[in-house]
Amino acid sequence: MRGSAVVLFSSLLIFPAPVEAQAPPADDVRASVARWVDANQRAVVGELVDLLSIPNVAANRPDILRNLTYLEQAFARRGFTTRRLDTAGNPLFFAERSTPGATKTTLIYAHVDGQPVDPAAWAQDDPWTPIVRTNRIDQEGTPVEDWRSRDRFEPSWRVYARSASDDKSPIAAMLTALDALAAAGFAPTTHLKVIIDTEEEAGSPNLVPAVTRYRDVLAADLMLIFDGPMHSSGRPTLAFGARGIITGTLTVYGPKSGVHSGNYGNWVPNPALALVRLLTSMKDDEGRVTIEGYYDDVVPLTDEERVLLTSVPDDSDELKRVFGFAAPERADRSLQEGLQIPTLNIRGLASAHVGAGARTLIPDRAVAELDLRLVKETSGPKLMSLVADHIRRQGFYLVDAEPTDAERAAHPKIARLEVGPLMAAFRTSPLADDSRALATALERAFGEPPVQIRTLGGSVPIAPFVEALNVPAILVPIVNFDNNQHEENENLRVGDFFKGIEILAVVLAR
Amino acid sequence: MRGSAVVLFSSLLIFPAPVEAQAPPADDVRASVARWVDANQRAVVGELVDLLSIPNVAANRPDILRNLTYLEQAFARRGFTTRRLDTAGNPLFFAERSTPGATKTTLIYAHVDGQPVDPAAWAQDDPWTPIVRTNRIDQEGTPVEDWRSRDRFEPSWRVYARSASDDKSPIAAMLTALDALAAAGFAPTTHLKVIIDTEEEAGSPNLVPAVTRYRDVLAADLMLIFDGPMHSSGRPTLAFGARGIITGTLTVYGPKSGVHSGNYGNWVPNPALALVRLLTSMKDDEGRVTIEGYYDDVVPLTDEERVLLTSVPDDSDELKRVFGFAAPERADRSLQEGLQIPTLNIRGLASAHVGAGARTLIPDRAVAELDLRLVKETSGPKLMSLVADHIRRQGFYLVDAEPTDAERAAHPKIARLEVGPLMAAFRTSPLADDSRALATALERAFGEPPVQIRTLGGSVPIAPFVEALNVPAILVPIVNFDNNQHEENENLRVGDFFKGIEILAVVLAR
Repeated sequence: MRGSAVVLFSSLLIFPAPVEAQAPPADDVRASVARWVDANQRAVVGELVDLLSIPNVAANRPDILRNLTYLEQAFARRGFTTRRLDTAGNPLFFAERSTPGATKTTLIYAHVDGQPVDPAAWAQDDPWTPIVRTNRIDQEGTPVEDWRSRDRFEPSWRVYARSASDDKSPIAAMLTALDALAAAGFAPTTHLKVIIDTEEEAGSPNLVPAVTRYRDVLAADLMLIFDGPMHSSGRPTLAFGARGIITGTLTVYGPKSGVHSGNYGNWVPNPALALVRLLTSMKDDEGRVTIEGYYDDVVPLTDEERVLLTSVPDDSDELKRVFGFAAPERADRSLQEGLQIPTLNIRGLASAHVGAGARTLIPDRAVAELDLRLVKETSGPKLMSLVADHIRRQGFYLVDAEPTDAERAAHPKIARLEVGPLMAAFRTSPLADDSRALATALERAFGEPPVQIRTLGGSVPIAPFVEALNVPAILVPIVNFDNNQHEENENLRVGDFFKGIEILAVVLAR
Repeated sequence: MRGSAVVLFSSLLIFPAPVEAQAPPADDVRASVARWVDANQRAVVGELVDLLSIPNVAANRPDILRNLTYLEQAFARRGFTTRRLDTAGNPLFFAERSTPGATKTTLIYAHVDGQPVDPAAWAQDDPWTPIVRTNRIDQEGTPVEDWRSRDRFEPSWRVYARSASDDKSPIAAMLTALDALAAAGFAPTTHLKVIIDTEEEAGSPNLVPAVTRYRDVLAADLMLIFDGPMHSSGRPTLAFGARGIITGTLTVYGPKSGVHSGNYGNWVPNPALALVRLLTSMKDDEGRVTIEGYYDDVVPLTDEERVLLTSVPDDSDELKRVFGFAAPERADRSLQEGLQIPTLNIRGLASAHVGAGARTLIPDRAVAELDLRLVKETSGPKLMSLVADHIRRQGFYLVDAEPTDAERAAHPKIARLEVGPLMAAFRTSPLADDSRALATALERAFGEPPVQIRTLGGSVPIAPFVEALNVPAILVPIVNFDNNQHEENENLRVGDFFKGIEILAVVLAR
């Protein structure tokens, strides 16, 4: 049973942390940084907004290069040396700065590219012309017309723009954190390397060879990922792993072109019906994947791991209210439990037309876009091959190109499964020294233990680093959970942004 | 068992026709008209192309009015008096011409509006700039560049344009048939009234009150509908009824806006999954509707009706080849049998995005566009209420507007069923005198009995006329069956157009 009455375990009770000798007191760092940010709100928000004003869909390379130019100048101003790492796709951004006296190196990862946009769906004219609202749009947030001339920003205000949360604000927060630390006389406790991805929202298809190629450049003792949303409680959050992802496009074929639904209805097979029946065969009414072997590689949780999951505050009532739904897929499974196993998500459906363009026809095809989230123990290609096997067992002939006339004549049910790029999952032990040191620093600075998440549900392209560099990796998310990430009206809560700067400063000066 | 070896019954063997005393010999009419068309191909095609060049989506009233102006001039040139009949929507076009010595009146129905277009899906730049190809696009048809200066048109050529088949060519064919009859010294055997619909592809939402309001204007002894495709055998075709249609838009609601499929996958319910499971519950794998009571009002066929269905040539192998599918929905049901019962067709699906715009999210909603074809005995509103009852039985709470926060909090499964306009089915007895007279005239002219169809699968807004005017109605389709009606690349086979002119001349001079 989960509810607000459940006792929440402090991470410290579970995992006693080692004392970190050389770092400055975390609470001093936080207070100093907070004061500096408070005195410089206009400049701090201004730098974020400048970055958000550069369009950043990975497929649009000239836009990505404009972002890189911006980053080169911003990091150079903070004493970093920068370079572009060539790949088969967009170049990666790299920056490094040594810290006098430090013996270890931290590699920081973020990404500057953003999800594609459908501008018509946004409440503002242009997703890359940021605006500020007094609150969320669906909570009566109204535009702050004169925000560009304001010196003070209310914590409840929100910056609306593509990548406001995912993932440009962590980059801006890191830059500000370095400024604020320097102004207060603090320094990071390690050498710093920064790698900024330019194709994350496109699945980072070129990252694996690049990480291998630049293994020496990227070598580090710890990797920190600045991406993803904080826990909805607003408490500082650490995540020790993230799910992977593999996408697939499932097409079921009907007649060569749409045929009149009156003249041929009840005779010509409808591919939309075949697709919905096929998808129905893959999942039950509670979202449980019913494909044979789908969960076989999932390792049951240990008691210790279950305690860690339970220590994450239960915000399910708030999430249900904000997202507007009555009940999760399964009454017997918490969100944290759900994140420990793979998904099979229908992320898009299309067949012929809906709405004003709808026409009375039997469609020529029906398409479902799928994304399969992976956990460390499950292989994306293997899950996809299980999906393909399942499709065949439902009587479909699988093609790997548009079906030929001969194939159409021979097979009553024809489908195609196009597999997209893979991003593997990763997980670092929450009991490792680095894990404990971060948790301790954040607890000292913020007066309560951070929310500690075994597996973040989203995917970050970190597995190649972990494998190629043999480096532990930990996520430090800072943005508000209700940010409309990946959707229209993406936004960043200003209060969370300011707090995120403090979090990153504490982490860098741990 | 159906196949090419099945003996096809002649309609004359089944339904002996009365001798029609006053009409000229049908074969003389046909030969005279054919000669005239042959000598005037350029002008005949030119008039069709002029009409096709006027955009004609019902929602675009100025375009519809331009079509009406064209019709007024074309019919006035043939001695008709014309008027516009006002409705709550687009005006209807009406024309009449008396025939000296005639005692009966024929009311002819066609429609000048066309389905909406998606120009990007067409092979030509503009669906309203007709082009001519040597054959179907998928049969290596290439553009005939100089067709506008040609005097001769090959029968295998095709005119590509929106409404080339549905339903402007029957209007052009009728005008040409009247010219050719006059040139050969023949006249129609009845007074003529012509009503041309301007909202047929929008479901003729304003036709019912208009027919009642103009009952006296429209009064006639027989109604002929010039719409729909001929049988694929290419034989002249008569249809004594047509299915009706009612459309519905089914929306299943998910979170208020799309949420990240990683952060919340396996926890936030996916509306696309709920929709596909709901649709799956409505139809089995062979397309049989599994909604309780859906077929209750269907009256079993009599032996005589079964013979009529069997007399329709079995073109299933050709249809399967042309449309490119291996097997119909049910092995034990012919196309003609399928047309005698209602359908539940998924004509469109949409949820979030597919293709390049696909994003990794749990969609906020999933939509299915449905069309339900009706037969004379089944009521559209009743079938829709059965669908709604079924949705409720699957555990859904049905809303009639976007769900409120309170509804979202109270109901785990929320759906909406928006019901569109209704077009009822109609059917005239194939044994009636008028039915037999038409069949006889066509058999004499073409040397074989016409294909006689009990129920045409498509829908025409004829039921209001049949009910308000108490007039028998018969469809005389003339266009090729493989015309891509309602889709991109709609086309008209030139040979079928010329033959259609002969058919309409024979029918008018019966």
